[in-house]
Amino acid sequence: MAKINPYFSDIKQNYLFAEIAKRVNTFAAEHPEKSIIKMGIGDVTLPLPAATVEALKKGAEDLSRKETFKGYPDYEGYDFVRNAISDYYKEFGAEVSADEIFISDGAKSDCGNIGDIFAQDNTVLVTDPVYPVYVDTNLMSGRKIIYADSNEANGFAAMPDDNIKADIIYLCSPNNPTGSAYNKEQLKAWVDYATENDAVIIYDSAYEAFITEDLPRSIYCIEGAKKCAIEICSLSKTAGFTGTRCGYTVVPKELEREGVSLYKLWYRRQATKFNGVSWPVQCAAAAVFTKEGRRQVEENLNYYRENAKIIADTMDELGIFYTGGKNSPYVWFKCPNKMSSWEFFDYMLENIGVVGTPGEGFGKNGEGFFRLTAFSSRENTVEAMRRLKELLKK
Amino acid sequence: MAKINPYFSDIKQNYLFAEIAKRVNTFAAEHPEKSIIKMGIGDVTLPLPAATVEALKKGAEDLSRKETFKGYPDYEGYDFVRNAISDYYKEFGAEVSADEIFISDGAKSDCGNIGDIFAQDNTVLVTDPVYPVYVDTNLMSGRKIIYADSNEANGFAAMPDDNIKADIIYLCSPNNPTGSAYNKEQLKAWVDYATENDAVIIYDSAYEAFITEDLPRSIYCIEGAKKCAIEICSLSKTAGFTGTRCGYTVVPKELEREGVSLYKLWYRRQATKFNGVSWPVQCAAAAVFTKEGRRQVEENLNYYRENAKIIADTMDELGIFYTGGKNSPYVWFKCPNKMSSWEFFDYMLENIGVVGTPGEGFGKNGEGFFRLTAFSSRENTVEAMRRLKELLKK
Repeated sequence: MAKINPYFSDIKQNYLFAEIAKRVNTFAAEHPEKSIIKMGIGDVTLPLPAATVEALKKGAEDLSRKETFKGYPDYEGYDFVRNAISDYYKEFGAEVSADEIFISDGAKSDCGNIGDIFAQDNTVLVTDPVYPVYVDTNLMSGRKIIYADSNEANGFAAMPDDNIKADIIYLCSPNNPTGSAYNKEQLKAWVDYATENDAVIIYDSAYEAFITEDLPRSIYCIEGAKKCAIEICSLSKTAGFTGTRCGYTVVPKELEREGVSLYKLWYRRQATKFNGVSWPVQCAAAAVFTKEGRRQVEENLNYYRENAKIIADTMDELGIFYTGGKNSPYVWFKCPNKMSSWEFFDYMLENIGVVGTPGEGFGKNGEGFFRLTAFSSRENTVEAMRRLKELLKK
Repeated sequence: MAKINPYFSDIKQNYLFAEIAKRVNTFAAEHPEKSIIKMGIGDVTLPLPAATVEALKKGAEDLSRKETFKGYPDYEGYDFVRNAISDYYKEFGAEVSADEIFISDGAKSDCGNIGDIFAQDNTVLVTDPVYPVYVDTNLMSGRKIIYADSNEANGFAAMPDDNIKADIIYLCSPNNPTGSAYNKEQLKAWVDYATENDAVIIYDSAYEAFITEDLPRSIYCIEGAKKCAIEICSLSKTAGFTGTRCGYTVVPKELEREGVSLYKLWYRRQATKFNGVSWPVQCAAAAVFTKEGRRQVEENLNYYRENAKIIADTMDELGIFYTGGKNSPYVWFKCPNKMSSWEFFDYMLENIGVVGTPGEGFGKNGEGFFRLTAFSSRENTVEAMRRLKELLKK
């Protein structure tokens, strides 16, 4: 008799976005005259940079001719893409060689699949509030999960505690959902902790491209990280690839546990359960890192950054505590008047028709906090903040 | 301390294709004057059907404009692709509703990942010779594997044995590597076995498009299969998508084990560890199933089918036992003169410069057998068979 994975029942159904949709739909039906502005979404909205569209089309064209046709790609990605990413890392002071980079269909897949190379018997540490994928994928594998608190006191940047023993640590910086970004000293503390405990850090740098201040854009900016960290990144937020699907994971050649190369384990995992990324998509990925691609990517990033600043400035004006707003497309703020996350959700929706994400959906430390994203249009962002100021200044 | 997955060490390094490459390279270096024809490759060589290239380009174009831009896709694929596949199933008598279909980046990913929904404690049955992915992905998860013999006596179509208890069964028909395809009665015997034992069949139908005779093109052509089988298919061989990357998996709504819907488990798995398929690729996938797409796809398939026939006819002429050659791009034959697989590999390479795949690389029942594929050019296929006849008729 086929037995199902018993650990799936440990995963909580996450009704967060379903619940949001339900409340918004109910409100919209009852108030068809109200204009609703959605700022809860973590998905990009600007079109792809022109250079990447051209590359996609050229890649498609290649597939139409026998001489340029591409069959099965390399499991780890084409060298021209890996070289481009290696060069990109150099710009912010991280030494990552092309052959440590694995191209994939996105950071979420890699975040989910990386657990395959580890034993079930590992204690996983995540920071709370947390991107649910880190938790759910490890629950599915029957691993024990412990939480490090991110909260107002530490600026939503949880730090390691030497009294707590973790084997695998998920860090996300700039953070989803809190927008906070570790500085060099903070990240070094995590690398030191991992080194001392022979732990492995899974570092999610999906939002690194939003960093404008002097903060590490890769964990490999920290000495010692190549012996204790895997980094997972994505072009989804960098270049608007949420619907194009391309990410990359770095497993340093010198990263070993129990005498075994994690690079070799991940290579084996990918060779066995993955067959590489679509040729046109890899062409588009490489185009992100060309001079023209980079210029266009920065243009889009600046648009979202300006939206984030408009939200952050509003919080400043209203005297509300927040993290993010710079180095991140997210603004994570304390609900005014001691409202709970869901109370504030309803309050905003009902009074000004603005939709965001209740922080409670990301973990216990999210209660009483709220997330707005910079991915709306400029017009909607400005209008939503105008309404919010009017509401809260009453 | 992070502990690695202990089961990775149970996987044998598969040196098959590396060893082939090594021997071919050595021979080529020593005999630069000899023309070498490669017929070992399981990858397509004809360009993509024009309709799919156009769809890829149109999909790329969509991403360039705000009004048509696509962000995160649905985890299970866009409805227009799922509907097209559901209609395709109807053509060969299988009732598969669109909402039982999950679009993915390829059959190999799904074959590898499907294990996530099952407990470690399951006995997995594979037929031998076997596509190594079924074995390696289950070894990685620490599952016990048993083998059903495919051999000359049963036409390389292993059948169930009621005395052997298996929980999860991998079937591939038309088979890789043997080219044999189950008929309705044979497949029914497997469905009946799975039903009686509450087992689940993972049915790999990646080569179904090669079927021209009256054979089931889906396990759902068999009564009862929807209560015991998951089907994994791909556009790689159907439409030359090996470098474009798109496949699909069917998990019937009525398939339950231990009172739990496997559809819900797989949905949860995909929602947690996967983020959907690239927009332009999904556009191309849908184009495969348009009238024009189907016509172009058939044209390519017929080219490969004719190559397979040329190989099969050669075997007939030489009086060599083989399977496949029809309903399959593979011809699997008995090495002449009682040669071992590798002896025959060297014999062909050294005497006529033709490269194939030694059957021994696919399992113990592959020893003494050899695989040739229909994916070369017509010219090379004809020339290779001319050389083979000359060699063996001496």
